[in-house]
Amino acid sequence: MQKGTFSVTTTKYMELIDITGMVEDELHLAGVDEGVLVLFNPHTTAGITINEGADPTVRTDVIMALREIIPFELPFRHMEGNSPSHVLASLFGASETIFLENGRLQLGTWQKIYFCEFDGGRSRKVHWRCI
Amino acid sequence: MQKGTFSVTTTKYMELIDITGMVEDELHLAGVDEGVLVLFNPHTTAGITINEGADPTVRTDVIMALREIIPFELPFRHMEGNSPSHVLASLFGASETIFLENGRLQLGTWQKIYFCEFDGGRSRKVHWRCI
Amino acid sequence: MQKGTFSVTTTKYMELIDITGMVEDELHLAGVDEGVLVLFNPHTTAGITINEGADPTVRTDVIMALREIIPFELPFRHMEGNSPSHVLASLFGASETIFLENGRLQLGTWQKIYFCEFDGGRSRKVHWRCI
Repeated sequence: MQKGTFSVTTTKYMELIDITGMVEDELHLAGVDEGVLVLFNPHTTAGITINEGADPTVRTDVIMALREIIPFELPFRHMEGNSPSHVLASLFGASETIFLENGRLQLGTWQKIYFCEFDGGRSRKVHWRCI
Repeated sequence: MQKGTFSVTTTKYMELIDITGMVEDELHLAGVDEGVLVLFNPHTTAGITINEGADPTVRTDVIMALREIIPFELPFRHMEGNSPSHVLASLFGASETIFLENGRLQLGTWQKIYFCEFDGGRSRKVHWRCI
Repeated sequence: MQKGTFSVTTTKYMELIDITGMVEDELHLAGVDEGVLVLFNPHTTAGITINEGADPTVRTDVIMALREIIPFELPFRHMEGNSPSHVLASLFGASETIFLENGRLQLGTWQKIYFCEFDGGRSRKVHWRCI
């Protein structure tokens, strides 16, 4: 089972960063071209998701909607003050699973893989394994 | 590793469609009876989920709640006008993982697998692999 | 492929219970120390998530936020009256995937695994398999 880790630098409080190219580079360097790829985010105020990549406004619209959905004004007790970010981490989930076929990610026509920053900017990591 | 793809036709704007039987048919035809099954949705305004199948009102109640949770009136910039559908795609996730034992899906008593349409009706696909 | 099932007893209507130690005990007893671990929740009003474990207020803050996000007063038709719990089950997802390396779960510094009870207290089960 091949595996690896790569880094993602985020600059905004909340943003979706297209990491599809980074994932493809990792797989290419490791010589993996067939299997089931799992990406894992080891952070508690971040996530990984798959969504549209053609129009960059989709990712900013998604962040705009999330900031409307998540309550920021509740009497949260966690002293770091980032409870809304923790809620988003659980709603998005820590991992994504994608099929790999003939050296290419079997993503849909419009799909890209995004690292989800919910409490940035920070230096983040993504672990992966290919089964 | 066995794999396949099947089609799902949706007819409503937003709906949950029970695909448990389709998944079982695929596995039966492929002769797979043991392993870890991954279902992957290649669309950016759809998802896959597992929820109650006994009472059909659960799936309509879930859609009713989602339409209340997701904001539709924000100043979204994505010109296709379906940003709320993209948000739901990320909240539900593109894949589901289910165990397969002695030729049967190891689902709980009340669990069924649903294809989640968030911007239909459309012709959709589901990819699967069994590890 | 090694596998198992363990029980979780919940006592509150909605709560996150740290099951990291239970998962580690299961893997230790089964002698599994390398691979990709999948945890599966077979219930339709519960889930599994990964989030911060250092400060116990994070898990109560997450529950507080979810109860604010999910509508409870819609004209739901499901007669059991627990439609909000079913919505949360789908938003959190039925499974989590975690890497296992040298006998240790490859979780981030602050990450713990939580069983999510959304309609308790109940007696619940978690299935696992390690690939």
